[in-house]
Amino acid sequence: MKILLTNDDGINAPGLYALYTEMIKAGDVVVVAPDSEKSAVGHAITLSDPLRVTPFYKNDHIFGHAVNGTPADCVKLAYWALEINPDIVISGINLGSNTGINILYSGTVSAATEGMFLDIPSIAISLTTFHEPDFRFAAKFARHLSAIVMDHGLPKGTLLNVNVPAIPEEEIEGIEITRQGHANYQEKFDKRIDPHKRVYYWLTGTKIELEQDDEVDDRAIINKKISITPVQFDLTNYQFMDELKSWKFEL
Amino acid sequence: MKILLTNDDGINAPGLYALYTEMIKAGDVVVVAPDSEKSAVGHAITLSDPLRVTPFYKNDHIFGHAVNGTPADCVKLAYWALEINPDIVISGINLGSNTGINILYSGTVSAATEGMFLDIPSIAISLTTFHEPDFRFAAKFARHLSAIVMDHGLPKGTLLNVNVPAIPEEEIEGIEITRQGHANYQEKFDKRIDPHKRVYYWLTGTKIELEQDDEVDDRAIINKKISITPVQFDLTNYQFMDELKSWKFEL
Repeated sequence: MKILLTNDDGINAPGLYALYTEMIKAGDVVVVAPDSEKSAVGHAITLSDPLRVTPFYKNDHIFGHAVNGTPADCVKLAYWALEINPDIVISGINLGSNTGINILYSGTVSAATEGMFLDIPSIAISLTTFHEPDFRFAAKFARHLSAIVMDHGLPKGTLLNVNVPAIPEEEIEGIEITRQGHANYQEKFDKRIDPHKRVYYWLTGTKIELEQDDEVDDRAIINKKISITPVQFDLTNYQFMDELKSWKFEL
Repeated sequence: MKILLTNDDGINAPGLYALYTEMIKAGDVVVVAPDSEKSAVGHAITLSDPLRVTPFYKNDHIFGHAVNGTPADCVKLAYWALEINPDIVISGINLGSNTGINILYSGTVSAATEGMFLDIPSIAISLTTFHEPDFRFAAKFARHLSAIVMDHGLPKGTLLNVNVPAIPEEEIEGIEITRQGHANYQEKFDKRIDPHKRVYYWLTGTKIELEQDDEVDDRAIINKKISITPVQFDLTNYQFMDELKSWKFEL
């Protein structure tokens, strides 16, 4: 099995390394990842600037290819320029959850989306904490899941978005197949004054009003389950198309 | 009517100005837009850096607020920090189409998405050319459509993604309510050598294998029609959830 790994926390992130140490037990691993942290970049791609690929070393060995671009760039570049043609793409392990409407902002998910566009089975995987992360179980689960996915295949245009609760392995109560939550955010911008007396703003303090439904991704995490959401990228609201056709648009 | 305008081509883009000159006929316009071009940024938001807001002048008058962030940042900041509470958000007029899977990469659409998350009726509008754009008809149509949208309202969690063919007004053959096309891209990276003999790559030459279906957004444009796609942001593949539940996941 040829495995392409990437992430959005950058090629030196511990979550990627934990994933790497597990996945090398399953096949040939190639790492192509951003040279620095690219969280919340959404599905950004780099059109206006050149991309460079640099070998990235760990312990005197080349660990992977560092790219001065986004997670989506990494997968595009790996496939089209570096001619890496993997059997599976795994993006992660992300530091912090990627659930609900947050998956629209997620570089981790965007990389898996690029794999999906190439008709390669693709998985995004995240650990739901920012504090003292232990990626080992999530990495083990990624390996396990990748074998299952290779067995079954995934429908065209669908990836798996996986969130693993940041609790000890023995406390995890199984797996839930989930849907993307719809809860909106309560945003807050800190208004501050810089040393030169100029105003700046810093995005902070998001709060979710979570849905109660057990099938919601975030709810699975609260219930100590691994959340697996099948994600596709047709954004059309088909239900609303008919009503929209009845509107009078004449200028 | 209080109208918030933004875009991803930057606050000085002609497409935004064309939209502005029409929309001021319809109500009170506030412009909050990126201080520079932010195309293909996807749904990026700025978490790691401070955001600044600078008055942007045109002809000795303040035209709007320039933000050193992404289109999504602009809408969040307008609402939560600048306390602008518009009746409608319009993002555009983008230089170049936003159709098919491209809408995932689109800063223009991401700004409208932020309006939608705030439960404000939101429209993304694009002109389907990069060459010698004439935004006047698209701007007129934006004003017309905004009145219709204010009349009808939009379903919660749905925005309108509008693409206007770049042809003379009299050649436009009406409006098509469309779905997002699914066609994949054929990417190409130009491999080049810089003056210091280092390799770099530049993303280029995308080609669509377009679906034939007249309801596809890009097909409407070819048919000289204005494409209006209702866009929502639940990415769950509900059809596949049941099959996924039947998989054996035990470790």
